[in-house]
Amino acid sequence: MNRIQRVSSWLKEAGHTAAFIHTKENVFYLTGFYTEPHERLMGLFIFQEEEPFFVCPGMEAGQARSAGWNHEIIGYADHENPWELIEKALKKRNISIHTLAVEKDSISLSRAEQLKHSVGGAQFVSAEETLNQFRLIKDDNEIRLLKEAAKLADFGVEVGTAALREGISEVEVLAQIEYELKKKGIQGMSFSTMVLFGEKSGQPHGNPGTATLKKGDFVLFDLGVILDGYCSDITRTFAYKTINPKQEEIYETVLQAEKAAIEASKPGVRIGDLDLTARGIIEKAGYGDYFPHRLGHGLGISVHEYPSMSQANDTLLQEGMVYTIEPGIYVPEIGGVRIEDDVHVTKDGAVALTQYPKELIILP
Amino acid sequence: MNRIQRVSSWLKEAGHTAAFIHTKENVFYLTGFYTEPHERLMGLFIFQEEEPFFVCPGMEAGQARSAGWNHEIIGYADHENPWELIEKALKKRNISIHTLAVEKDSISLSRAEQLKHSVGGAQFVSAEETLNQFRLIKDDNEIRLLKEAAKLADFGVEVGTAALREGISEVEVLAQIEYELKKKGIQGMSFSTMVLFGEKSGQPHGNPGTATLKKGDFVLFDLGVILDGYCSDITRTFAYKTINPKQEEIYETVLQAEKAAIEASKPGVRIGDLDLTARGIIEKAGYGDYFPHRLGHGLGISVHEYPSMSQANDTLLQEGMVYTIEPGIYVPEIGGVRIEDDVHVTKDGAVALTQYPKELIILP
Repeated sequence: MNRIQRVSSWLKEAGHTAAFIHTKENVFYLTGFYTEPHERLMGLFIFQEEEPFFVCPGMEAGQARSAGWNHEIIGYADHENPWELIEKALKKRNISIHTLAVEKDSISLSRAEQLKHSVGGAQFVSAEETLNQFRLIKDDNEIRLLKEAAKLADFGVEVGTAALREGISEVEVLAQIEYELKKKGIQGMSFSTMVLFGEKSGQPHGNPGTATLKKGDFVLFDLGVILDGYCSDITRTFAYKTINPKQEEIYETVLQAEKAAIEASKPGVRIGDLDLTARGIIEKAGYGDYFPHRLGHGLGISVHEYPSMSQANDTLLQEGMVYTIEPGIYVPEIGGVRIEDDVHVTKDGAVALTQYPKELIILP
Repeated sequence: MNRIQRVSSWLKEAGHTAAFIHTKENVFYLTGFYTEPHERLMGLFIFQEEEPFFVCPGMEAGQARSAGWNHEIIGYADHENPWELIEKALKKRNISIHTLAVEKDSISLSRAEQLKHSVGGAQFVSAEETLNQFRLIKDDNEIRLLKEAAKLADFGVEVGTAALREGISEVEVLAQIEYELKKKGIQGMSFSTMVLFGEKSGQPHGNPGTATLKKGDFVLFDLGVILDGYCSDITRTFAYKTINPKQEEIYETVLQAEKAAIEASKPGVRIGDLDLTARGIIEKAGYGDYFPHRLGHGLGISVHEYPSMSQANDTLLQEGMVYTIEPGIYVPEIGGVRIEDDVHVTKDGAVALTQYPKELIILP
């Protein structure tokens, strides 16, 4: 059963007439076609039985076809009203929509109002949860792409460490990393690259700036790429030229917590327990108050997707899940350490997709 | 009258009880605070008479204060429900909201539903048009920032031309441009940088790739930065080592059209007529079918904002408007030329903020 058919069969079970899917991530997941239509309307109508159709700017129709979409495409020109074309297409199919599943967290109120008008006043229900659940388990091809993206994240860290020298600024290092990655033909970074020196590494959401590198600093890299539609996300922390005992204790505590959570990643394990495993180690070392965030997040077409690796998540791990494990300790005035890998759950346990060494490295 | 007061007085005139403003662009415009809260809720409540209040993640409250917001801030922790805090704040003010102006094109259906619940079922009206109109006329400080951003766009073109050599790829040149700009401390690029060689310059929305540079190619750069919240956007096209008569004719036609539209930019002129001025020159040269887009777009906090420089726009130019003028001719198999400047309307006519030379340059 292909992905479109899975949506159709969900619609049948749930008793919804149709789904209208418009986010670029879910359109890509369902059609193989990745595009950013900006303010222009793009959307996929899926039904219980009828053939689906795809609405997009006319100039993109050819690419959608090349990407493998072999059902109807309604391409529209800038002077045409796509909502009228949708009304016509529905009329042609003689479909009256009672309940329509839409991505309620993403669709704008204006668009929802226009859509409601075009489909003749249907009730809207949420499509997000179902699609998030579908995307939760990755197939072999997705794993292959995530692995490739992870390799480039490793490479980004390599470029970053090679760029370091006393007095260089965070943004200079950042620019070199992104430059080398863009030369490799990535679609883009999966989020704003983080390069933080010294005390700034102690801010979980710090912004790189013109701060310069000096002996004794922690250097924290957090970065990832989008490659063929799939994301990676790695964090590594290094000591520059020297390390003091307090910094070393923090590093080793985070490392132990990270490894323990990967070790504990096996099908059947409650996700929340992974967070508790890592958190327990950090608390025992006396740094519980300095680990203010969840253990990690799912990873795939979006850089943050299901599952949420928080202690409250009762979901059980399954083969094919991919997520980050990224405990951290952030101590004001000393700095912070975070170590993050992308992890794939197999029947025999977790396999890290990111492979950059993570034992403490004191850079020369 | 400050910007918040302008919104209040609009609410009074229009008879709306309040406005809820949540996009980062309009929050920045109204508060001076620029942030990207991602999935977390941020919003500004403005009333006819009552004091406004700002809701944001607690960890950002300090920055909002530093940015100059001196009214109430409701900061919330991750475990708190901001909607409940909003309900309380409204109750405290004893305000019953009948009509609420929201940014309907941006607010998600989920959020609109939650908001409607929190404010007790008010009717929603659109806030976008009013805010777009406010932002249409730039003050002196905004012009100063736009000029700074434009200078960096000029610099980006300079870096790009310096990077060119036979066999270099589009993405390599792109990476060098962004690298040098990031070193200057920009917030980011204002859109995906475009570097297109040869035939690819003939795609108005082409994507840079691994195509390499060869003698006789057109080289098209389209790029811009965000600096202190304001955007720039420049396009320049060069000939590499040599040019043929057809290419030269295309270049000179575009240049003439671009200059004529700038020349015609004066307070009181109908905006649509600028497009027609440029288009007329291109049509007369026989390339009318190869100029498929509008003349340009407004520029400010957003890289595309009011006014739309399309032939249908009946708005009259006013002092303080800032927009791009960017005619282009795209001929399949030959390539394309686009020349774009950012333009500021003063009482004496248009002043270009971007200053990179635009007479035909054949790069050695």
